[in-house]
Amino acid sequence: MDKVKVAILGGSGYTAVELIKLLLRHPGAEIVAITSRQSEHIADLHPSLLGRLDLRCEPFDPDALKSKGTQVVFGCLPHGTSMESIPPLLERGMRVIDLSADYRLRDVKVYEQWYKETHHDQKNLAQAVYGLPEVYGDKIVGAKLVANPGCYPQTAILGLAPLVANKLIELTGIVIDSKSGVSGGGRTPKLSFHFPECNESVTAYAVGTHRHTPEIEQALSDVAGAPVSVIFTPHLMPMDRGIFSTIYATLTRAVTEAELVELYRSYFADKPFVRVRTNPPATKDTTGTNFLDVCVKVVRGKVLVLAAEDNLVRGASGVAVQNFNRVFGFDERTGLM
Amino acid sequence: MDKVKVAILGGSGYTAVELIKLLLRHPGAEIVAITSRQSEHIADLHPSLLGRLDLRCEPFDPDALKSKGTQVVFGCLPHGTSMESIPPLLERGMRVIDLSADYRLRDVKVYEQWYKETHHDQKNLAQAVYGLPEVYGDKIVGAKLVANPGCYPQTAILGLAPLVANKLIELTGIVIDSKSGVSGGGRTPKLSFHFPECNESVTAYAVGTHRHTPEIEQALSDVAGAPVSVIFTPHLMPMDRGIFSTIYATLTRAVTEAELVELYRSYFADKPFVRVRTNPPATKDTTGTNFLDVCVKVVRGKVLVLAAEDNLVRGASGVAVQNFNRVFGFDERTGLM
Amino acid sequence: MDKVKVAILGGSGYTAVELIKLLLRHPGAEIVAITSRQSEHIADLHPSLLGRLDLRCEPFDPDALKSKGTQVVFGCLPHGTSMESIPPLLERGMRVIDLSADYRLRDVKVYEQWYKETHHDQKNLAQAVYGLPEVYGDKIVGAKLVANPGCYPQTAILGLAPLVANKLIELTGIVIDSKSGVSGGGRTPKLSFHFPECNESVTAYAVGTHRHTPEIEQALSDVAGAPVSVIFTPHLMPMDRGIFSTIYATLTRAVTEAELVELYRSYFADKPFVRVRTNPPATKDTTGTNFLDVCVKVVRGKVLVLAAEDNLVRGASGVAVQNFNRVFGFDERTGLM
Amino acid sequence: MDKVKVAILGGSGYTAVELIKLLLRHPGAEIVAITSRQSEHIADLHPSLLGRLDLRCEPFDPDALKSKGTQVVFGCLPHGTSMESIPPLLERGMRVIDLSADYRLRDVKVYEQWYKETHHDQKNLAQAVYGLPEVYGDKIVGAKLVANPGCYPQTAILGLAPLVANKLIELTGIVIDSKSGVSGGGRTPKLSFHFPECNESVTAYAVGTHRHTPEIEQALSDVAGAPVSVIFTPHLMPMDRGIFSTIYATLTRAVTEAELVELYRSYFADKPFVRVRTNPPATKDTTGTNFLDVCVKVVRGKVLVLAAEDNLVRGASGVAVQNFNRVFGFDERTGLM
Repeated sequence: MDKVKVAILGGSGYTAVELIKLLLRHPGAEIVAITSRQSEHIADLHPSLLGRLDLRCEPFDPDALKSKGTQVVFGCLPHGTSMESIPPLLERGMRVIDLSADYRLRDVKVYEQWYKETHHDQKNLAQAVYGLPEVYGDKIVGAKLVANPGCYPQTAILGLAPLVANKLIELTGIVIDSKSGVSGGGRTPKLSFHFPECNESVTAYAVGTHRHTPEIEQALSDVAGAPVSVIFTPHLMPMDRGIFSTIYATLTRAVTEAELVELYRSYFADKPFVRVRTNPPATKDTTGTNFLDVCVKVVRGKVLVLAAEDNLVRGASGVAVQNFNRVFGFDERTGLM
Repeated sequence: MDKVKVAILGGSGYTAVELIKLLLRHPGAEIVAITSRQSEHIADLHPSLLGRLDLRCEPFDPDALKSKGTQVVFGCLPHGTSMESIPPLLERGMRVIDLSADYRLRDVKVYEQWYKETHHDQKNLAQAVYGLPEVYGDKIVGAKLVANPGCYPQTAILGLAPLVANKLIELTGIVIDSKSGVSGGGRTPKLSFHFPECNESVTAYAVGTHRHTPEIEQALSDVAGAPVSVIFTPHLMPMDRGIFSTIYATLTRAVTEAELVELYRSYFADKPFVRVRTNPPATKDTTGTNFLDVCVKVVRGKVLVLAAEDNLVRGASGVAVQNFNRVFGFDERTGLM
Repeated sequence: MDKVKVAILGGSGYTAVELIKLLLRHPGAEIVAITSRQSEHIADLHPSLLGRLDLRCEPFDPDALKSKGTQVVFGCLPHGTSMESIPPLLERGMRVIDLSADYRLRDVKVYEQWYKETHHDQKNLAQAVYGLPEVYGDKIVGAKLVANPGCYPQTAILGLAPLVANKLIELTGIVIDSKSGVSGGGRTPKLSFHFPECNESVTAYAVGTHRHTPEIEQALSDVAGAPVSVIFTPHLMPMDRGIFSTIYATLTRAVTEAELVELYRSYFADKPFVRVRTNPPATKDTTGTNFLDVCVKVVRGKVLVLAAEDNLVRGASGVAVQNFNRVFGFDERTGLM
Repeated sequence: MDKVKVAILGGSGYTAVELIKLLLRHPGAEIVAITSRQSEHIADLHPSLLGRLDLRCEPFDPDALKSKGTQVVFGCLPHGTSMESIPPLLERGMRVIDLSADYRLRDVKVYEQWYKETHHDQKNLAQAVYGLPEVYGDKIVGAKLVANPGCYPQTAILGLAPLVANKLIELTGIVIDSKSGVSGGGRTPKLSFHFPECNESVTAYAVGTHRHTPEIEQALSDVAGAPVSVIFTPHLMPMDRGIFSTIYATLTRAVTEAELVELYRSYFADKPFVRVRTNPPATKDTTGTNFLDVCVKVVRGKVLVLAAEDNLVRGASGVAVQNFNRVFGFDERTGLM
């Protein structure tokens, strides 16, 4: 079978380099172009790629991408910029898997409220599929535009899905306390990510205002068939990568921990990337993989869910490849195991 | 004024070395003895003390300590061992500030339930004072036996005290999600604290079973004048020191964030070691100090308290010196600023 | 083509888990057995393997390994233990790639002097091949017993090979200053690798006595055709993995940096895992890969070589797979790119 | 005795905050002013100072500093900027302890060659004293302008001083391999100090071109009474603070390690901040202190010196206070033990 020709928009950041490494190992993908404002060799931007990919970045040009036979474009641009670049690609018949937030929220008003920006591409938003394969799997097959999910939301949505699907918890007041490595903040230097500032330290940020809140609520409301609201608090940890979410919810009826473990095992039985564990996972168990580890506990009448993932793989580029597999009909695990 | 003669039990761990450094700077304290099973020079156990303290550790011998004129003993032994060593010291008229958990819980049954050990010293337990100066300050003055508080509990108790004292939150179902550096686990090598295991990783431990739970509840119940119950989840962070607790509670009546900030400022106005902040603190802001930083937020009808401290200073040895100051009539800040 | 049936001795450590991950991706290898003193499931020893390898460890039994059709055994045991376990495997016709030091030093006296142990298997030592493919490549093809090289030596040997092969430096007094992540010290907890001890700290160890010294000298003497002697100083860095060696040698004749870069490029032209760079490499550029990055500089008449690798991949399990490829006739890069 | 009135130029960086903390503990110093381009409260720039120093930064104005009674100014500005700001302070009779490099090199040509800048203040350069108390102690007493030494040079100069003073090593070709924490690079965010770039990684930088090279050579030449030349290679370590230098030199005559240890002990007998050790120091032993730990070893005819310090305390602000003590006649240890 011919390989799918792939382009990447925005090659200079952490999700791009992670995606490139995954695609280089994928038997069904061929990287034909990478765009970046700097026309540098990709190994000058990411020395780890030296000897692995001999490609020079090019300016963004939809026609040039098309003429190279590009079938699918992975968007690694910031939100706001994404919705400017993606429409001309879709017009030219290329598929898009967008890692930004621009096509994740169905309701433009919610987007504009949380992102403080006007949405310029409502047309394509209407056909975008939220790319969380374990929940929206069938819709992703053959999709033209996949909105790749955020890093934090995946831990929250998958961690809670079995509970809300089975009406086992109250749908308001759910507490999601998340801890993330620094790579989640991107590659642009700023004081809060300066090594001697964030090393050997823990802090919370965007308390009550983080943009992943509505994304979590939208997906969980879909699963519940009713509105869900959460309190989401992200924290910055002194490590490169990894997200650990500790989730607290109130049970609607008495249920044992053993029953919940069984429920989780059953719910995720055919989901190869979700590992149900009986002990708390450590983010390190998931580093470099597309696994999302979950553990469910009952403590004093509350249910606790512990969920861990690698924020750059499962949280971004790995799930993007998982979506790629679904879009193009590969086995979901191809290139990811 | 003559210096108070001080001895330290159990010189080999992290709280001991931190305490020694604090006491060396204290104008009113003189270290006359340090006990340890190994009769090593203290600088062989802790090379950082080379050139700062020329003292050889000695075996535990209450009479020997007494004969050196020891007025107060800081206990840096593990729980269980502490309650064996402390009675003979009290009998000989020495005061004790115990950093273990053995004298913290007034109810022996609660101790035995959580610590899975029989309590052997109920007599002295009855007269022990819980050494959290901001809450039990007057009782500590002149006390014979101070039970120095745990590291996690201080963040939870001080973080919540203004709220429970003013009946502003529901007293059950309070969520305390705490993140700690590795030094909190002590100095004995074990796999979970082996560098390549815990570095670059986050995990939760002792979910629903951590022994600081009843300690938090006892103190908060005192403040509330009614039973308080909490869900406490500790996490291990890849850093040496620092605790960050994120606390979630349900408001009993509508109150603004500004009102809460004002309440906190007022509550801690005469407490020099609690800093009320309007932005989330970082543990690094407190490293090496006896400060406990708190920040209160209202998010979607819940109140969030963020509290940060250095687990070895504020969380153990610093508050022990603060207690020492109260016991012996020094200004609370002596040697700590 | 049938897959080569592989067994691993000593499944509980870091080189074993790294090797397992590499072999799981290798199209020509099948893991049929893993031995360990504990008969645990491999995912209990290494939670990261959950869902990736369903195999229970077994006690060491050469006949059992043979009966499973094992063609090659990777030894991940400590030195001393290795030379006890390997002879019965060779007798039964299995090939061995040994990651310990037991078969690296041709001269038993040198082994016994540095390792302070009697060597019990001189017979097989005589036929062992030192498994540094870039230097001893042809000898490895079809070898029965490969002594996989040490982590530090590879940076020193490959970093200096072009210089000593071309008689460009003096062969005595070469300074090798190496910096390693903590995983190089193995997985057994001890105080020096306890997180709060080695985090946020740098120190040197085994100054003048490290056992990799004679290994470096043996290989460089082979390349030079004359005795080479080095001063080797290892240091411990607060990070999981990575080795960076800074090497200082005295030029025997005037040569420009540009000429040396050209020489290195030419020397490593057909070595896919050595990347010659003109700027100092960072260990992070090599993390998770089998690459060894080298950079050569001339400073005030001395030549400096900077060499970086991942100590667990290139330094141990990756080069073991590279050796496996040579032994069994696969392309050298199989499973490693 | 009245306290010495102190001002600090350039309050926003790491050396400034460290200096402030040291001066707050110093019984003979009073901070009367801190300058910064931003007129912020010092606790907004450095949250760790909250509740410890209530002072707003002010723009640089020599007359304003003079009118506050400032007796000494600590310069925490970058090189280049320092030599613009310091002359007007000296003119107005204030003393200056400058932490930049502008007054360290006596030979303007050497300065201009390594710093690539024209030197604008040769007049004051002529009277500047190099502030390494263990070597230039007497000259610092009562000095008007002290050039505080660089962080790396102190480890190299003090590590080698006993050897060069006693003509025990060859004076050329000395190798100084130094490893530093990231705070040495300052507080301005840039990619190389962005957490996910430098964490979990080691690299060398400024190979053969680092500006501390001539500073090391100037001081060692003073000690030797003859020209000294060195090869100095700095490396970046994933930690906040600490410098570890491994120094390699060639002995001019046979001498035992025991003799060298004795020599070092004798040389530093009256230097309270240099600790001579027989085992390799770890940077962590010196963290937060003004100690510089040295260890001397003989390996295969070479002498190795291992030297460790805290780059922000001993390497910058601590030695600045030590110089302050000498300038104003305090005991050298005041405020530093």
